[in-house]
Amino acid sequence: MTPTLAEMQGKFEHALSLYCATLPNTSLYEPIRYILSLGGKRIRPVLVMIAADAYQADETCTIRAALAVEIFHNFSLVHDDIMDAAPLRRGKATVHARWNENLAILSGDAMLIEAYKQLAGINAQWLKPALDLFNKTSSEVCEGQQLDMEFEKVAEVSVAGYTEMIGLKTAVLLGCSLKMGAMLGGASTLDADALYQFGKLTGVGFQIQDDYLDAFGNPDQFGKQVGGDILANKKTFLVAKAMEVMQPSDRKELQRLMSQEPRFDPTVKIREVTAHFRRNGIDEAALLAIESYFMQAEELLRSLELSEGQKEPFRAFARQLMVRKA
Amino acid sequence: MTPTLAEMQGKFEHALSLYCATLPNTSLYEPIRYILSLGGKRIRPVLVMIAADAYQADETCTIRAALAVEIFHNFSLVHDDIMDAAPLRRGKATVHARWNENLAILSGDAMLIEAYKQLAGINAQWLKPALDLFNKTSSEVCEGQQLDMEFEKVAEVSVAGYTEMIGLKTAVLLGCSLKMGAMLGGASTLDADALYQFGKLTGVGFQIQDDYLDAFGNPDQFGKQVGGDILANKKTFLVAKAMEVMQPSDRKELQRLMSQEPRFDPTVKIREVTAHFRRNGIDEAALLAIESYFMQAEELLRSLELSEGQKEPFRAFARQLMVRKA
Repeated sequence: MTPTLAEMQGKFEHALSLYCATLPNTSLYEPIRYILSLGGKRIRPVLVMIAADAYQADETCTIRAALAVEIFHNFSLVHDDIMDAAPLRRGKATVHARWNENLAILSGDAMLIEAYKQLAGINAQWLKPALDLFNKTSSEVCEGQQLDMEFEKVAEVSVAGYTEMIGLKTAVLLGCSLKMGAMLGGASTLDADALYQFGKLTGVGFQIQDDYLDAFGNPDQFGKQVGGDILANKKTFLVAKAMEVMQPSDRKELQRLMSQEPRFDPTVKIREVTAHFRRNGIDEAALLAIESYFMQAEELLRSLELSEGQKEPFRAFARQLMVRKA
Repeated sequence: MTPTLAEMQGKFEHALSLYCATLPNTSLYEPIRYILSLGGKRIRPVLVMIAADAYQADETCTIRAALAVEIFHNFSLVHDDIMDAAPLRRGKATVHARWNENLAILSGDAMLIEAYKQLAGINAQWLKPALDLFNKTSSEVCEGQQLDMEFEKVAEVSVAGYTEMIGLKTAVLLGCSLKMGAMLGGASTLDADALYQFGKLTGVGFQIQDDYLDAFGNPDQFGKQVGGDILANKKTFLVAKAMEVMQPSDRKELQRLMSQEPRFDPTVKIREVTAHFRRNGIDEAALLAIESYFMQAEELLRSLELSEGQKEPFRAFARQLMVRKA
């Protein structure tokens, strides 16, 4: 019996708590235990486990790889939160806010090394390809964060530029997680690469959905404050798309709204920007893009050398990501 | 013919410049090229190369491992310089001073990953042990930096505590470099471990020598400003030793000198603290400790399964480190 996503998540949480208990009781490792215990959906390790299960990979290797991607993901959150000067993460104080920036830098570094320690524990047979994949992906996540920081300083971002950025910053790690799990089970290169693309496309679709929900989501269902991106003048998919399709006069108006002083009434600003988006069909364009990414992703599952039953968990995962409707 | 240390250094510089040329021309990688081009003695890669040469390791593997330790070392400098708010490194602007803190954090992260990329390129046969050694050492370097930061906040540091800190922060990477080179040449575990200890003891001796020279060095021969540690109230070996051996009244006097306002005349402060050290025989104690570490290190070379000629480069390296006399 294929375990459900919730069962895999539960299994991972158990392994994670065992891992955390092995960390030294020193101030360097305390923030690592803290950030790893804040929860989250554990999307990346579950992806490793889904793929590993489909190709019957060794369980110990699978858990190590799952820990590696989750520790890496949380390392990137710790350092990104310093760069973004973010006070909160999952409703709790960020590491640099709770301790200080220096410790957040150093504990983050130690976390990145911890991720590699887990990776080093997988079977020698898979070590080199797993390490190569992980190295490439990790570099790309840094490159994505760099693009994201650069986008804050420029006047306009194209849809292609935005998609490249989220592809690197967020989506490649989903692709890497699936490919890693498949590799550990000895999947063919074709299957491993198809799953990588499936993960990446799903990740891009998910991120655009996140941008959409920030502006148009139902506040009762959407976990975050609606309009947060708008108030932060963030260059989301919506803004990039708007700048590409709108008439010069409408673009100017959006730029004016986005350059307003922060003390401008936030409710009015959110209402005006979202109205502007709707008037120009940006909401519909975003929904189309999201659907297109998820459909392209699902298309890739067809080619896999797996039975329909074995493919089901991948579909279930994609459906779960798409569940956050407006 | 065994190449000289200078020849090895030259060979490494060549490999490093080839490596730097392969890095992408984006703002994330520019600081990496910058810090790697600032020079330095390239102690760690040369250690890899000495050991690899003694055990006839494969040349390509050796260069990759040498690049890995040097890139890692420079990564740690980039992040340490942020934590220390240091404006200068080797007479040039530090990465965070030249660009900004966020880029220094992110480029540093990318550097750590770059080090692992080099490591991933060594022969599959040695990959797992090399990765384990590198992971352990990297964690220890972070733990050493953490201890160093904690020492800034406490009133007193013991000689044992100080030695542990420099052992982790500085010396283990020298040991790791030698052991890695030896491993790549198929050295016995006994030899690889003896070289690790040789590197670590030499590293501790070198660091205490650095502390000694800061207070008692000849300004014409010592590369840095004499008394810099004293003005920064740094808890060096000298301070740790002084606090352990001095009478209560002398300890109080040293604590008073060290807690003086920075606007106190620096020349007077340096003169008074060094006089205080001399009066209590701390200079002699430091020289004894340095000699003891270097002698213990040299003793370890005796057991190696190498000819006297093959051991010579290790001795030459130790002599070169000890050359900076007062």
